[in-house]
Amino acid sequence: VRKVSIIGVGQTRFGNLKDMTLKDMIAEAGNEAVKDAGVPKQEIQELFVGNFAAANFNNQNHIAPYAGSVLGLAGIPCTHYEGACASGGLALRQAIITVASGARDVVMVLGVEKMNSLDTGGVTTVLSQAGDWEEEAMLGLTFPSVFSLIACRHMHEFGTTREHLAQVAVKNHANGMKNPKAHMQKLITIETALNSKRVAEPLGLYDCSLISDGAAALILCAADVADRYPGKPVDVIGYGQASDIFTIYRKDNLTSIGAAVRAGQEAYSMAGITPADVDLAEVHDCFTIAEIVAIEDLGFVAKGEGGPATAAGFTAMDGEKPVNTSGGLKSKGHPVGATGVAQVIEIVNQLRGTAGERQVKGAEIGLTHNVGGSGATCVVHIMKRRA
Amino acid sequence: VRKVSIIGVGQTRFGNLKDMTLKDMIAEAGNEAVKDAGVPKQEIQELFVGNFAAANFNNQNHIAPYAGSVLGLAGIPCTHYEGACASGGLALRQAIITVASGARDVVMVLGVEKMNSLDTGGVTTVLSQAGDWEEEAMLGLTFPSVFSLIACRHMHEFGTTREHLAQVAVKNHANGMKNPKAHMQKLITIETALNSKRVAEPLGLYDCSLISDGAAALILCAADVADRYPGKPVDVIGYGQASDIFTIYRKDNLTSIGAAVRAGQEAYSMAGITPADVDLAEVHDCFTIAEIVAIEDLGFVAKGEGGPATAAGFTAMDGEKPVNTSGGLKSKGHPVGATGVAQVIEIVNQLRGTAGERQVKGAEIGLTHNVGGSGATCVVHIMKRRA
Repeated sequence: VRKVSIIGVGQTRFGNLKDMTLKDMIAEAGNEAVKDAGVPKQEIQELFVGNFAAANFNNQNHIAPYAGSVLGLAGIPCTHYEGACASGGLALRQAIITVASGARDVVMVLGVEKMNSLDTGGVTTVLSQAGDWEEEAMLGLTFPSVFSLIACRHMHEFGTTREHLAQVAVKNHANGMKNPKAHMQKLITIETALNSKRVAEPLGLYDCSLISDGAAALILCAADVADRYPGKPVDVIGYGQASDIFTIYRKDNLTSIGAAVRAGQEAYSMAGITPADVDLAEVHDCFTIAEIVAIEDLGFVAKGEGGPATAAGFTAMDGEKPVNTSGGLKSKGHPVGATGVAQVIEIVNQLRGTAGERQVKGAEIGLTHNVGGSGATCVVHIMKRRA
Repeated sequence: VRKVSIIGVGQTRFGNLKDMTLKDMIAEAGNEAVKDAGVPKQEIQELFVGNFAAANFNNQNHIAPYAGSVLGLAGIPCTHYEGACASGGLALRQAIITVASGARDVVMVLGVEKMNSLDTGGVTTVLSQAGDWEEEAMLGLTFPSVFSLIACRHMHEFGTTREHLAQVAVKNHANGMKNPKAHMQKLITIETALNSKRVAEPLGLYDCSLISDGAAALILCAADVADRYPGKPVDVIGYGQASDIFTIYRKDNLTSIGAAVRAGQEAYSMAGITPADVDLAEVHDCFTIAEIVAIEDLGFVAKGEGGPATAAGFTAMDGEKPVNTSGGLKSKGHPVGATGVAQVIEIVNQLRGTAGERQVKGAEIGLTHNVGGSGATCVVHIMKRRA
């Protein structure tokens, strides 16, 4: 099995991109990644596309060869991967497996979503199809409700507070201020978060991630051919994917995402590291409570300690284990299919030392954690700076 | 790279399955494949799901872990692959690559679609999203129109006739009569086909495939562990996938699907065979003209000879190269995401010698050809009987 490196990254700004079509976003992110890698387009052998619901948002399905044509890549295999909010991470994992298998040397991974074509109610309905329609979504259990249940149970079991949740939002908004590609460029205080409009108790407006448009792309190659191209390589040293019971009412435990625990363990084991070896991480903070659960599931802190650790600055930009330096889904934005790819871009920038104002000094190992639905899918990737 | 075998198959009846939910269909096909392979469920390490548009047809997205939970497989990686009508074939290809890479030993591939939840107009709209919405579908270029253009051009260039198209329908309806799982169990004559209601000239009702519900599943394993299980193995000896320019108006050539030519060449090359070595094939006859184009693109006959060869019985059940012994999309039915998987099931049955009334004597090598959209995706698989 060959080692795999990431040698190029490209990303649109995330936001309500009224002036950009789906094609515009694909072209901008994809072409920027190609340029960054310095790979001639004709050497790209396969395209892996992560997208959740362009069929619903944009009347456009079969989106992989659609993107391939936009990027001038028609001819090569183009495949669309869907795993709700983890779609981008799934596309990346299969790309890594395909290169590692020896089948391809150089490939592109692209994540894209244009969500602001619908109003908030429409988006909520489309997103709810990532849960079980018959048994949950149709009955009103949309994602704010799902994560409100998770938050309530976490508070009940571990004494997590609304202030802890608000600390996640304050931190990620501060980080997003330093990211020119972030959707939300706005500092907030604990009070702003606590007093915001209620969405699903105990979650308020600032506990929720954003409805964003955006695209993100990576160029991957076999580590042993990375020297052929000018793009500065970052090595993939581990990855894991797992699923969980689809409906949350059938789960034994609401305060942990089993798929995240398993995906993390698989990735750590492959990389031969422990959670303590991870210098920084991008985790799936679709809601503030999700970041608290994530840092516990990934073993960065003990179960139940996510809230206090956040309040103590453990995950701050200058903390022991910076989390979501990009601003996270909360502030960078959450164009669903692009999210898992954009998380990796932040880690690549950090490990290359090109994260600008957000740079974490001495970062050597970074992790991404990308969750789909109410946790039925999780994929984790671990990257390492090349010496 | 390890060799891969198929050791289990399972399939629902195809049809307008009013009495079955999406979950019922997944359970029936998946559990039948598990039983056929004789694999303990806990040994299945990953699930690959092909589905086109459950989000539109059934309000259900994120369908891979949804299926995983239905099948009692929650925990393992579950990934959804979408490539329009080639979704099932794409899922199978990535499953093969994943096993071949050594990452997994035993996996399941499942294809499913429940289309009859919408009326014909609704289905046509959803299907049209497999083409370019802005540039084609929104303007009225739905798939019957696309294949009518292909048929017109093929007639113009090669003298193909409406009778040739009708011969495809007559043959596939006759084959479907022998397939108890086929949607349509109805013999037709050339006259019935020629005089049927017009859909998009020169295509009539009997030139079009069906709107079907159904699911199909396979159990794959590394060839070197196939002996552990009772399921009779059939070996995968080649596969290929390619894309093409997304919009048909930008293509140089309407009478050939470039992606099919490239996917076929890649598969033949990997298998070390020529088209002449293929004993039988399941090809993507979404419209009768598509089967004629397919047997040309795959090199079974010379370009332009597809019509006359069909009329001469070359592709008949007792012909030199039987094509669509299952009845094909035309008569077996076309539950989009299941189609690419069901094609492989027919070949497995033929190579195992368990195809009953449809059995082609002495079949050793079989091929499947699965096309998405107006040809922007094609995936080809070649299987061989184990000595």
